[in-house]
Amino acid sequence: MTHSRRAFIQKLSAGAGGILLSGQLKSQVKEDRKLGVALVGLGNYSTNQLAPALLQSNLCRLAGIVTGTPEKAEKWCKQYNIPKENAYNYQNFDEIRNNPAIDIVYVVLPNAMHAEFTIRAANAGKHVICEKPMALNVKEGEAMIKACQTAKVHLSIGYRLYFEPHHLEMRRLGMEKVYGGVKMIESSLGFQMADPQSWRLNKALGGGGAVMDLGVYCIQGIRRTLGELPTALTAQGYVRDEAIFKGIYEMMMFQMEFPSGAISNSTTTYTSYIDRLYATTGYRWFGLEPSYNATGAKGNSSAGELTFKTPLFQQIAQMDNFADCILKNQKSVAAGEEGLIDLKIIEAIKRAADTGKKVKLSW
Amino acid sequence: MTHSRRAFIQKLSAGAGGILLSGQLKSQVKEDRKLGVALVGLGNYSTNQLAPALLQSNLCRLAGIVTGTPEKAEKWCKQYNIPKENAYNYQNFDEIRNNPAIDIVYVVLPNAMHAEFTIRAANAGKHVICEKPMALNVKEGEAMIKACQTAKVHLSIGYRLYFEPHHLEMRRLGMEKVYGGVKMIESSLGFQMADPQSWRLNKALGGGGAVMDLGVYCIQGIRRTLGELPTALTAQGYVRDEAIFKGIYEMMMFQMEFPSGAISNSTTTYTSYIDRLYATTGYRWFGLEPSYNATGAKGNSSAGELTFKTPLFQQIAQMDNFADCILKNQKSVAAGEEGLIDLKIIEAIKRAADTGKKVKLSW
Repeated sequence: MTHSRRAFIQKLSAGAGGILLSGQLKSQVKEDRKLGVALVGLGNYSTNQLAPALLQSNLCRLAGIVTGTPEKAEKWCKQYNIPKENAYNYQNFDEIRNNPAIDIVYVVLPNAMHAEFTIRAANAGKHVICEKPMALNVKEGEAMIKACQTAKVHLSIGYRLYFEPHHLEMRRLGMEKVYGGVKMIESSLGFQMADPQSWRLNKALGGGGAVMDLGVYCIQGIRRTLGELPTALTAQGYVRDEAIFKGIYEMMMFQMEFPSGAISNSTTTYTSYIDRLYATTGYRWFGLEPSYNATGAKGNSSAGELTFKTPLFQQIAQMDNFADCILKNQKSVAAGEEGLIDLKIIEAIKRAADTGKKVKLSW
Repeated sequence: MTHSRRAFIQKLSAGAGGILLSGQLKSQVKEDRKLGVALVGLGNYSTNQLAPALLQSNLCRLAGIVTGTPEKAEKWCKQYNIPKENAYNYQNFDEIRNNPAIDIVYVVLPNAMHAEFTIRAANAGKHVICEKPMALNVKEGEAMIKACQTAKVHLSIGYRLYFEPHHLEMRRLGMEKVYGGVKMIESSLGFQMADPQSWRLNKALGGGGAVMDLGVYCIQGIRRTLGELPTALTAQGYVRDEAIFKGIYEMMMFQMEFPSGAISNSTTTYTSYIDRLYATTGYRWFGLEPSYNATGAKGNSSAGELTFKTPLFQQIAQMDNFADCILKNQKSVAAGEEGLIDLKIIEAIKRAADTGKKVKLSW
């Protein structure tokens, strides 16, 4: 990215204020002036969500790829008109530092590779957005934040729901106590893990089963609605199929206590489908079902339906926000520190399940 | 009830087979040939649910009352055309043994009085239906069953949902594995306890806060849908307002493990509204929301809505079933033993919450 291009976008976005909504400046920003994003890892999420979202982003464009499969590189370069010099593999990835077309590296790899590639991207001088959960553990998450601070690059987590209208409304209703203060909040997420070979079931790659993968959504939904962090929690882990779930929990329930007195209860599971966020304040309530899936939420409340028009891809707003933050040199609401909070909670949940004891948290 | 009246109804109902549905024989059973029910305790539930339901029952009629308030006795006798000799108070209640107009005593008192009045009614030779939860603890429940066995009278628990079409469909879908075997099941029930003077908040009268009062619904919904009994459980109890909740839990979460491998998760709370039963089998699911309230359930599933026409009062089918069982000398599906199962589970939940340890159950 040339200095003049950055200055041009800076000028444009300065007038927009706050979170830039997708399409807001569509006609104003020329394609070659958008921030260039390189996707690291071309699996299902990159293929079906991120790449199409980037086509509709106002401030970002898909400018590069990193993949270990030469055939994929060729296919993607052709499909997305990516110059061959912007296609990297995991060995030559660090050379990306010399490529001015890449402003942002988006890490879409198995959890175990998040820390390494975030740190390598930061060391290459690129801003980084990393998929959730941020890393395998708190120690890795802290190292990632430190590397980005040292390199003076921005770090964000792929928390698309921080920018999703139904979730923003849940947060507004909860934090502004529109229906009164939330006293109890339930959130559960589960699906049937059909592929026993998935990296998500490999402890070394995925890091911890259902709660690692799905718990981060429930935790986020609950704490963002309450605008609070939990001070204590309990958890119960279950394994039904020990041949598939080795050293990780297939199902995890957890209960969190918040300073306001609100208590949450959650189920995360790889056995079967559930997708829900529900907050109740007394006589009144508000919630989403489905809540977390990438294809759209549906809201309801004691006062009637909560329905918002949403773009086909939630990642458009997520990417536009990150680009906007980079251009304005502001911390994103979905910065690395948010990912670290969730990792701390997940570690506490695992410890509570392993020990059967209540775990206290301090912030 | 005269012998000839009983014989007449016996003849009628013998042809009906299975559970008698309300209205089925409406035109055939004359009012004075129905089984006479005496309501013990004329609070909200008797006033707004049971009395109007009995007006529409096919096999029962409101024939007597037991109340400590003379003004209430007078009002009810007038309103429901009850002869004054069928109105008792708590002192002269045992004289009911000499009243042939009363076939069934329905105990609608605070939980702490269930055992005493069930046993007194049995000793008076009357069949008994007792509101839920059956008693304060397992010991009382066992004594109630024994007293009814000794007196050779039928005992049933006021489990209206055993006869409610949406709940019968949940049970069919679960037990027949219509959508596959249930792997995870959530059920929660809560409301805002507006009256701090309620007997439900008095440990001596209510017996145990939210889980005692509301947990029985969730337990029932879960175990009836699965057709199984839990073999282990964990629980977490919370008190937010210690001035009101003395020695009882304001909120209780609990998780149950079943022989099939299904796991449940529940919240019961006196803080705020929730009313839900949800079963998930893999890709598919089925559930009710609201689920347990007396004014009607609403069903949904991965295959579309589950909607049934329901009578205004769920207790009509409950009472017709109990009368039918009495007339045929068959055990009700909602017999005392069902209430005892739920008491055993509630006791285990309280022990799990008190100790923070998993409690195993054997049956």
